[in-house]
Amino acid sequence: MKLTILFGGASFEHEISIISAITLKEKLSTHELSFIFCDQDHKFYLIEPSKMRASTFSKGEHKKMPQLSLTNGYFEQKSMFSSTKHAGVVLNLIHGADGEDGTIPSLLDFFDIKYIGPRVDASVFSYDKRYTKWLCEAKKIKTIEYEVLSSNEHKNINIQYPIIVKPARLGSSIGLSVVKEESELDYALDVAFEFDRSVIIEPFICGIKEYNLAGFMAKGEFHFSIIEEPQKNEFLDFEKKYMDFSRSESVAKAELNSTVELKLKSTFEKIYKNLFEGALIRCDFFVLNSEVYLNEINPIPGSMANYLFGDFETSLELLASSLTAQKRAKTNYEYIHSISKAKGK
Amino acid sequence: MKLTILFGGASFEHEISIISAITLKEKLSTHELSFIFCDQDHKFYLIEPSKMRASTFSKGEHKKMPQLSLTNGYFEQKSMFSSTKHAGVVLNLIHGADGEDGTIPSLLDFFDIKYIGPRVDASVFSYDKRYTKWLCEAKKIKTIEYEVLSSNEHKNINIQYPIIVKPARLGSSIGLSVVKEESELDYALDVAFEFDRSVIIEPFICGIKEYNLAGFMAKGEFHFSIIEEPQKNEFLDFEKKYMDFSRSESVAKAELNSTVELKLKSTFEKIYKNLFEGALIRCDFFVLNSEVYLNEINPIPGSMANYLFGDFETSLELLASSLTAQKRAKTNYEYIHSISKAKGK
Repeated sequence: MKLTILFGGASFEHEISIISAITLKEKLSTHELSFIFCDQDHKFYLIEPSKMRASTFSKGEHKKMPQLSLTNGYFEQKSMFSSTKHAGVVLNLIHGADGEDGTIPSLLDFFDIKYIGPRVDASVFSYDKRYTKWLCEAKKIKTIEYEVLSSNEHKNINIQYPIIVKPARLGSSIGLSVVKEESELDYALDVAFEFDRSVIIEPFICGIKEYNLAGFMAKGEFHFSIIEEPQKNEFLDFEKKYMDFSRSESVAKAELNSTVELKLKSTFEKIYKNLFEGALIRCDFFVLNSEVYLNEINPIPGSMANYLFGDFETSLELLASSLTAQKRAKTNYEYIHSISKAKGK
Repeated sequence: MKLTILFGGASFEHEISIISAITLKEKLSTHELSFIFCDQDHKFYLIEPSKMRASTFSKGEHKKMPQLSLTNGYFEQKSMFSSTKHAGVVLNLIHGADGEDGTIPSLLDFFDIKYIGPRVDASVFSYDKRYTKWLCEAKKIKTIEYEVLSSNEHKNINIQYPIIVKPARLGSSIGLSVVKEESELDYALDVAFEFDRSVIIEPFICGIKEYNLAGFMAKGEFHFSIIEEPQKNEFLDFEKKYMDFSRSESVAKAELNSTVELKLKSTFEKIYKNLFEGALIRCDFFVLNSEVYLNEINPIPGSMANYLFGDFETSLELLASSLTAQKRAKTNYEYIHSISKAKGK
């Protein structure tokens, strides 16, 4: 399989994306991979595969590598007298802003480049946790109760402590706090508002079970990963999560009764269908008293949740080969012609 | 005011966008305008203002004009030995696909170009009528009851005839039918499915009043147009609507009691706030028994609904001058540095 991994982005998850890309390079070592880095100034660079290590970017060495620009159908590398095309399927591996907020999907769609990843609608509904709640309400999927706070707002919180405070639009646990009592609230809000104007507050439910399930649709059928019960030390802080993005070892299947397993899968399908086509996503669920609640949707999971798939390479190949091209509307200037005719011009 | 009007796009509303741009050229004749045309192959052209007439595009004459490409901060015109920058505020006047579905907003955001128009989230919620319904449910705004049909689905419709059948993702009444009895349904569905995989069905309510209100937020305050009661001949078909996009004459204010007027404005504010900032939008409402229902949101209304504003030019100037720049997240490679240190590298 030939695949171009697009990573980086102007995002708080920029470094995490680099780690994800390095992990996938190892995981997909038998494939023909290219690497395109989007830096924080939104410039694209073609990265020599042998230079795919963290220090290349932290030291700014990528700036010596060829710069690319987007053009219809491919990334273009221009030199004084020639131009090289970098075409082929792109894997959008930009976590957070740019990659998951709809920007990069729009760019790839506009320039007619096939890609693995959420389309613009799916991005908007998964990137902002408020909109994920709306999506779930519309699709009759349970979520934990919540409140929204804006940075310019003074409002009493009606949810009982302990609570979770998190920025509406960030993944990877960035800016997230568990608040045990009211005296700790202001600090947690300050932290969360560093990253977003809107904050989501949810109850922190002791003893709730957490399960992660990844999957995708290819050629009309769903393909699921195993279900993992992620390790919890209250929750993953950013540094632990950061290490989490470099996971490549297969994990053990969660101990689950088959009713709950079926419920998790059918909830995943409900979320995915008619919205996430083209993407491999990971849904993080809560289970309480055998009821399934959606926690969040990761439309570009860390290192593509490779560790959840028995045969990750085959899965990715299957998805890449089932991507369909976008149809562009065409006009034949029928109305302008008919009006010109009517005017006698 | 200097303003760049971006129009065209690969959309069923391509021709309508051309008409809109020509109308605005006349309406804003005292201003310094530039015109950038996005053709159906997603190429950008700088259009000589004196050539801003419908036949330029229907005859393909724009192809002889300078081609532009997007780069950080501006549209760039390259010639053999030099490059010219086209910077400044853009008015996104691409109706329908590309302009209103989030694609063009993402491109302008990515390349750091200030623009009047909906951002990507706002685009997704207004472009697809299903998502507009979800938005209204979340914000407790009334809408008409509805059902969704997918092209591969056979489903009984539980709404009583007469009904309205419309594609989920098209404006300008394209593909829309009023169906009086079941025998006419199949034909109406065929028409609507020509344009989209999803179709919205709503009851056609006789005697319902329709009101249009445009507005925007600038420097923290709302600015409203007058409220119009649009002419109805059952509904506007595409050809009539097409002519409608060239409107530039001021219209009469609708006769309305002040309670309903206030309700329309407060509903508009609820829809707009924290979502449509940066855009001048037109909301089309229904009123039945003094209750306000949202019909649809036009985030880029035809010819910017200029005919609804007492002083359109001042309004647009105010909006243009209140646009704020997007902040890009930056990283200092803190985590990569700390991990490298821990590893002793």
